[in-house]
Amino acid sequence: MKIDIHNHILPREWPNLKERYGYDGFLQMHHANCGKSELMKDGEHFRTVQANCFCPEERIKDMDATGVTVQALSTVPVMFSYWAKPEDTLDLCKILNDDLSSTIAKYPKRFVGLGTLPMQAPAFAVQEMRRCVKELGFPAVQIGSHVNDWNLDAQELREFWRAAEELECSVFVHPWDMELGGRMKKYWAPWLVGMPGETAHAIQCVLFGGVLEKFPKLKICFAHGGGAFPYTIGRMQHGFMCRPDLCATDTSIPPLEQVGKIFTDSLVHDERALKYLVEILGEDNVILGSDYPFPLGEQHPGKLIEETKDFSQEKKDKLLFENAIKFLGLQKKNY
Amino acid sequence: MKIDIHNHILPREWPNLKERYGYDGFLQMHHANCGKSELMKDGEHFRTVQANCFCPEERIKDMDATGVTVQALSTVPVMFSYWAKPEDTLDLCKILNDDLSSTIAKYPKRFVGLGTLPMQAPAFAVQEMRRCVKELGFPAVQIGSHVNDWNLDAQELREFWRAAEELECSVFVHPWDMELGGRMKKYWAPWLVGMPGETAHAIQCVLFGGVLEKFPKLKICFAHGGGAFPYTIGRMQHGFMCRPDLCATDTSIPPLEQVGKIFTDSLVHDERALKYLVEILGEDNVILGSDYPFPLGEQHPGKLIEETKDFSQEKKDKLLFENAIKFLGLQKKNY
Repeated sequence: MKIDIHNHILPREWPNLKERYGYDGFLQMHHANCGKSELMKDGEHFRTVQANCFCPEERIKDMDATGVTVQALSTVPVMFSYWAKPEDTLDLCKILNDDLSSTIAKYPKRFVGLGTLPMQAPAFAVQEMRRCVKELGFPAVQIGSHVNDWNLDAQELREFWRAAEELECSVFVHPWDMELGGRMKKYWAPWLVGMPGETAHAIQCVLFGGVLEKFPKLKICFAHGGGAFPYTIGRMQHGFMCRPDLCATDTSIPPLEQVGKIFTDSLVHDERALKYLVEILGEDNVILGSDYPFPLGEQHPGKLIEETKDFSQEKKDKLLFENAIKFLGLQKKNY
Repeated sequence: MKIDIHNHILPREWPNLKERYGYDGFLQMHHANCGKSELMKDGEHFRTVQANCFCPEERIKDMDATGVTVQALSTVPVMFSYWAKPEDTLDLCKILNDDLSSTIAKYPKRFVGLGTLPMQAPAFAVQEMRRCVKELGFPAVQIGSHVNDWNLDAQELREFWRAAEELECSVFVHPWDMELGGRMKKYWAPWLVGMPGETAHAIQCVLFGGVLEKFPKLKICFAHGGGAFPYTIGRMQHGFMCRPDLCATDTSIPPLEQVGKIFTDSLVHDERALKYLVEILGEDNVILGSDYPFPLGEQHPGKLIEETKDFSQEKKDKLLFENAIKFLGLQKKNY
């Protein structure tokens, strides 16, 4: 059994959002005939995707080929649209979440849903999260590593975290909105350097912000093996201890004491890094995630875990599916 | 024996740079009577330092107390002044390097020098590097993780790298010029998140830019255990292989094949991270660095290495001084 916490899906089609909302900046998809589809933003080419990005049947073919039992589906972060008018983002989230829901209804043994929310308007976010959990049956949501000018410790987001805890809705945090220009232009740096930095900062804000102290039942999982955070845990801890005036303003619990409470996916592409990650977080806190269907992901989801030397089968099973079951609160017999 | 590659020193005094150059933006130090001195920038308080930041005798006391044989002295990165007029930065570098030189002349068994250079004007940088090596006897220089709009792979910096190789001048790269405002304001994030990101990007640019392919004899050491780079090596490698159109534009040698050619200091503040770092870079490529005399540094330089379980004494000796001797091209008998 393998459950993949980190992969992305789009609807096959969605309304023209520029027409619907009256301004530009949203993603649209144009299907070509050659099996490829073009994602466009503001009239410019953003990314080419294949049918497995929007077609559940194509995904199931790939899942069967690589032994993935269940995908926890989430949207592509460029769809977050936190910058747009709150009521428009709420509308878009409903479109995306409803589409997710219909895909899951078709294949309930193969997919579960991570909803998307208008995080820039916490009251709307809570409203849509409640709908995701209570009406659509999603066990979790996916949010960005920050929300416009807010980090994840922002006062404004407290009502979101409170509601997530109450609803027992787990939260998957994905980096996004990295610096793209200037010195970051070359070598895919926004993805290879910016994303790990974004995630490290998001984890720092959750831990230093005392989010898990205030809402101790929250379950939060961070993408890409926690970005840069796990390797810099010593620096984080030392900084917290030596400059409490800067670091311990919102909680007195140092990061080393909190790190066993967060989750990350397993997407580190290196056996030594995976073993290090498990050492830092604990074997109950790392969850298979592949970033399917994108090229920077693990092309054979779970292969790194399965082939890691010195991991017992018991530990592998935790990483491959048991931790996901616990994190998402699933019933194993349903899959 | 312990040689500390990463620590910072300032002159006890230097000219009023606003008066000397006719504009503001430079660091000045005001000595108080209570043993503390205030670093000021543009009339605002920047940092409080103690006498060990500028007094060699105070440093030697501390070194004796912690068993540090030799410090490789470098300036504080905020003194880089790459933003200033090139001739002014050159002038300032000469002041700093001459001061370094006089400190080393006083205590030649306890200190070696890492010069500072006007990197924004590569011809001046080469000129001053030549003086540092040929006249002042420095084995290395310290540079920033980027130079204004240039990353370390910039065409403009080729003549610097070429000259460093010719002069057999090793290069220590220190992160600086991080984003300080906006979402980075809290929790010391520029230091705890920004610096590791800066260093990861600097390493990426050196490796993906083919700097070590073009100048294979270069010896480059990166601060803070390589920042975020070592843990993200799998992501770097996977990105390089799956998107050569973005990543392999300047060299065809993937990062995993190059990573054994770079050096980092040992400043990771966590035994598990240190062991991971040595696993990734190799035991010949990690050099004791403490960031003395600053609070984010290792307060007892080398303690982490000395106390790391599973490290043989042979391996510890490499990290504590042998790798530094090789990196800096020192003669052990002189210290």
